[in-house]
Amino acid sequence: MDDDLMVSDATSSLPVTYADVRSAAERVSGVAHRTPVATSRTVDRQTDAQVFFKCENLQRIGAFKFRGAYNAMSRLQPDQKERGVITYSSGNHAQAIALSGQLLGIETVIVMPENAPRVKLDATRGYGAEIVTYDPDETVREDLGQRLADDRGLTLIPPYDHEHVVAGQGTVADELFEQVGLLDVLLVCVGGGGLLSGCAIAAKHHAPDCQVIGVEPDAADDAARSFHSGTLHSVHNPDTVADGARTPHLGEVTFPLVRAHADDIVTVSDEDIIRAMHLVWQRMKLIIEPTGALAASALLNGTVAGNGRRIGVILSGGNVDLQRAAELFRRIGKGTETT
Amino acid sequence: MDDDLMVSDATSSLPVTYADVRSAAERVSGVAHRTPVATSRTVDRQTDAQVFFKCENLQRIGAFKFRGAYNAMSRLQPDQKERGVITYSSGNHAQAIALSGQLLGIETVIVMPENAPRVKLDATRGYGAEIVTYDPDETVREDLGQRLADDRGLTLIPPYDHEHVVAGQGTVADELFEQVGLLDVLLVCVGGGGLLSGCAIAAKHHAPDCQVIGVEPDAADDAARSFHSGTLHSVHNPDTVADGARTPHLGEVTFPLVRAHADDIVTVSDEDIIRAMHLVWQRMKLIIEPTGALAASALLNGTVAGNGRRIGVILSGGNVDLQRAAELFRRIGKGTETT
Repeated sequence: MDDDLMVSDATSSLPVTYADVRSAAERVSGVAHRTPVATSRTVDRQTDAQVFFKCENLQRIGAFKFRGAYNAMSRLQPDQKERGVITYSSGNHAQAIALSGQLLGIETVIVMPENAPRVKLDATRGYGAEIVTYDPDETVREDLGQRLADDRGLTLIPPYDHEHVVAGQGTVADELFEQVGLLDVLLVCVGGGGLLSGCAIAAKHHAPDCQVIGVEPDAADDAARSFHSGTLHSVHNPDTVADGARTPHLGEVTFPLVRAHADDIVTVSDEDIIRAMHLVWQRMKLIIEPTGALAASALLNGTVAGNGRRIGVILSGGNVDLQRAAELFRRIGKGTETT
Repeated sequence: MDDDLMVSDATSSLPVTYADVRSAAERVSGVAHRTPVATSRTVDRQTDAQVFFKCENLQRIGAFKFRGAYNAMSRLQPDQKERGVITYSSGNHAQAIALSGQLLGIETVIVMPENAPRVKLDATRGYGAEIVTYDPDETVREDLGQRLADDRGLTLIPPYDHEHVVAGQGTVADELFEQVGLLDVLLVCVGGGGLLSGCAIAAKHHAPDCQVIGVEPDAADDAARSFHSGTLHSVHNPDTVADGARTPHLGEVTFPLVRAHADDIVTVSDEDIIRAMHLVWQRMKLIIEPTGALAASALLNGTVAGNGRRIGVILSGGNVDLQRAAELFRRIGKGTETT
């Protein structure tokens, strides 16, 4: 489960700056949604804070991933655009690449496991992507992806460890600060660290004193350990409901950025994630996926104290199976009535 | 099921005007949420229209009902406020009255059937209301309510057939026009006609040529028949998933207003309601209840044509059981994955 890699921290040069985030903001303007900010009297009362929820579940394809994918693909050289893009993902990044390709007129190839949910395959294909499936017991997806990239001259755009992807994800926090002004704390979920590093760069530009805190599941605490130790740790296939945070470790691009700009990374239990998800569904009427509830859960379970502060919380995505959501709510003894 | 009452239409004097809606807007300002307007490229493409969804599912207590209840209760005389308010409802109006009472410092009594869902009883009690339950096989709720009102000097505020309730509900459309400008069509769900009559008044003020169309379930077509015939029809206990539209007939206040200001009332099947609800959950990540999907369903099923027009759709509420929603989606052969 846990085979810590002792890779040394690279802090020498930071490849993404606030200027890159601003440049990304111009790229995605008018293409990505400027997602709304939701508030809740119930949450404010429960947490003793003024909480601003950035609704990336209402972003195109249902998650923030569209921002980074579009920013990266729009910056390809003409010959790269001509040849096309490839990625491997069975999650939100797959649809983000597929839709960006459709909008930019770039052919896309997505490598997905053959046992991926049919609806995910259909949705990705619906955006015009070519899907290449593989047997996860037989094939290493990175090998297949690299072979296809080499054979067909495709450019690989990975889900988080890429400068333009990071800059694109940073536009989430950039927009939030434009919308609500200064914040004392910004809470961001952590998987591979693309969203956290981009948002930390933007937050520190707008409010140098803003505490930027990453939140990841207890069972997938590689980023927290890496952050605190300065050494890159990994957790493979962690058992957590937050499937977007199952990435094994931070990346070469994101690790130094997170170290430089984030203030802390905390972890939460699956039960707390589900409780936060339930509250957002029940009281705010917003559909968020378990990973989308990570940031909120650290506030709602008291890991991060309210103390009357202005706190930004990123609801990162809303792609979830309703049947699964109902099961999760029952697991914590919650009814499924949203009244 | 259907025992048409031949009550003649009263069109002589109209008890609610746009001035009343404006006055209500001032009352609820800063208390009710100014709910956001959502848009969807998917819906626009599917319907060949520019569609503006007014998100009353994000209103306090999860439905537009708060506006009318608060407007009515805030206008009571001091002695009425002192004595308290009563209503009977097992739906959104109960919570609307309870929360308004809490905010205005007015005691509230809600008569609810003893078999109402526990979560509804708890939520209403949570707002500080006194709940009086009754055995629906033994007791007529109107009789019990009237007896309690008489005994304790309480003022009854019914769910729709009340001038100040109608004016309050009209602030939904008033806000929508302020937010998005002119509309060619406004689609509104119909139960007792409070929301439809209030919104029609506001719409005709802002855009005299705007077509205001009520939407009700096929099985509960009393308002459509009343509207077209000029005679009040009733349908008791209709079999429809849209529980908010199970009211037997339009009211003394709402019927003439609907006749005077609405342009049409159309009906839709339960399957179309569920399909619309599914699309809003899946693509827009917004939790709406079946009644909240009524207005959208008439556009999505083609009853109302898009024709490149600007169309307002009121998503009236979001209080629903997730388990039930998943069951409804399976009933129409839809998966429960929201990707």
